[in-house]
Amino acid sequence: MSQRLLAEDSLEAARLRVEAELEVFLEQCIIRDGEVAELATSMVMAGGKRTRPILIILAYEMAGGENIEEVLPMALAFELIHTATLIHDDIHDAAKYRRGTQTIHDRHGLAKAIIAGDWLFVQGFALGGGKYGENIVKLMSKCCADIASAELKQLAHINDLATTPEDYDAIVRGKTAGPFAAGCEAAALIAGQEASKAAALGRFGMQLGIAFQLVDDLLDLLGDARMGKPRGADVLEGKMTLPLIHGLTMLHGDARQQLSEVIDSFNDGLWQELISLLERAGSLDYSRSLIRTHMERGIEELHGFEETEARTVIMSLAKELMLRKI
Amino acid sequence: MSQRLLAEDSLEAARLRVEAELEVFLEQCIIRDGEVAELATSMVMAGGKRTRPILIILAYEMAGGENIEEVLPMALAFELIHTATLIHDDIHDAAKYRRGTQTIHDRHGLAKAIIAGDWLFVQGFALGGGKYGENIVKLMSKCCADIASAELKQLAHINDLATTPEDYDAIVRGKTAGPFAAGCEAAALIAGQEASKAAALGRFGMQLGIAFQLVDDLLDLLGDARMGKPRGADVLEGKMTLPLIHGLTMLHGDARQQLSEVIDSFNDGLWQELISLLERAGSLDYSRSLIRTHMERGIEELHGFEETEARTVIMSLAKELMLRKI
Repeated sequence: MSQRLLAEDSLEAARLRVEAELEVFLEQCIIRDGEVAELATSMVMAGGKRTRPILIILAYEMAGGENIEEVLPMALAFELIHTATLIHDDIHDAAKYRRGTQTIHDRHGLAKAIIAGDWLFVQGFALGGGKYGENIVKLMSKCCADIASAELKQLAHINDLATTPEDYDAIVRGKTAGPFAAGCEAAALIAGQEASKAAALGRFGMQLGIAFQLVDDLLDLLGDARMGKPRGADVLEGKMTLPLIHGLTMLHGDARQQLSEVIDSFNDGLWQELISLLERAGSLDYSRSLIRTHMERGIEELHGFEETEARTVIMSLAKELMLRKI
Repeated sequence: MSQRLLAEDSLEAARLRVEAELEVFLEQCIIRDGEVAELATSMVMAGGKRTRPILIILAYEMAGGENIEEVLPMALAFELIHTATLIHDDIHDAAKYRRGTQTIHDRHGLAKAIIAGDWLFVQGFALGGGKYGENIVKLMSKCCADIASAELKQLAHINDLATTPEDYDAIVRGKTAGPFAAGCEAAALIAGQEASKAAALGRFGMQLGIAFQLVDDLLDLLGDARMGKPRGADVLEGKMTLPLIHGLTMLHGDARQQLSEVIDSFNDGLWQELISLLERAGSLDYSRSLIRTHMERGIEELHGFEETEARTVIMSLAKELMLRKI
């Protein structure tokens, strides 16, 4: 069997295990908590690539962890907290669909969506707290506080054509890459790694997370049915993704003016014009090369770890994420 | 010095300590997390009686705890989580004022209010998790999940004139009394008490919490400037408080019809009519006698504890809460 196939099998095995564990956990929750758990479950189980929990399980194995049961609660915790942020984000973004399903606020109203999100946060913290001790709880809570700060920063830059690459970097590190970093670092600590090795895995997670968001930004522009939302949704919401920021920086005169206007008044009919302008500015290629850079930086952090099967699989996961095959 | 004065001094000392600790904690948060921490702090520090943290500190002392530093993070955690639920509740209740201050969503918009509430939940769990071990985290997370379930139940009964006393009881136990119970039980465990003694303190907290909500219900009808909201606000929001449920159960014929209509189309001009109908049904007196019953049941749970100064103070706190002197 080729290494490639081995990696794909391992990823699929991890994904199936995560699905099964989520299902069992949430079934028990529904018995105990009723409607609020049902609402939250409808969004957790609506799909999702399970990127965060799979990454956490693989990071744990790569860091020498031998009993996957040890890390599963943390892996689930990150998926639940991630879904909680999606439910709440979708409220203020007024998004109608997520993971191909009608959003909770659109279907059941504002109150239920807020409460279902709160409930999921609580479940995430319940799984990640207590069991693992204070250093891990601190990692999780710092990660969640950073998400909140980054969300406010992102809000402040909605429709702000003067958003800088530095603003973008701060938002992405807080909102997307921070949880990847915290999950990897926590997994290494749970596996019994020393702090410096755990920090290296954390840096891997951060780089991977930044690359992951850059891929998301490209997929939003280039369209991908698996995103479960229409192409250009970010542009429509006024989110300043990296290709837009780059395009506005590189273009001058009439072309910049035209790009500003397309972004300001975006609708699907302007999609071709937007892509042409971004291609003219080299923004899509720039994003692609940034993705490679962050990926390479991330992979470098893995060189301090033994060449185990888990390391091969996690590198494979990283590459797949960039190609969005999973 | 009389025992009465002693108790008042102890309560005031606990309140001042809580204020000081909250202030120091939140100042550090603002340095670290910026705007989101400022928004949340504006609501935490806008007032509030600090009932939950004071109760937790006193319960800890009554249970034999000797180093208040041990229990302070838990006391703050409950106040932060309580404020998080207020911020989120005020969104779906569309409340404009809280603690005499403009609500976050009304002043800063929906997104910031959701995120500020999420951030406060995270801070609460960070303080209450990790440090205390798994049994305490389980108590906290069950309490928070119960709040969420009770909120959904409450929503389902908005404007529902057929709400039963049993529905009311389930809502109050989950939303208001549950946190009192969990806080008291956690405090006793932190003080090193055995599980059965901690459970007795938990039952005290539950009874006190039910009585506390019944007092709130009365204050909503009878008006109290310290509530920071206009009289009849619950009625206006369609919340079925116990006096309304009782009145609708006891009255018949035209009087019941009249009460239904007053509740359905309530405004401040109908306040006198509402109060007359409830007095005719004996609903206000019934609420007062229920408050006494729950208080007595709660106080009974304390008889198993030594007659310490802390026990005197906590009994005094309970009585003050019923009179809403604090």
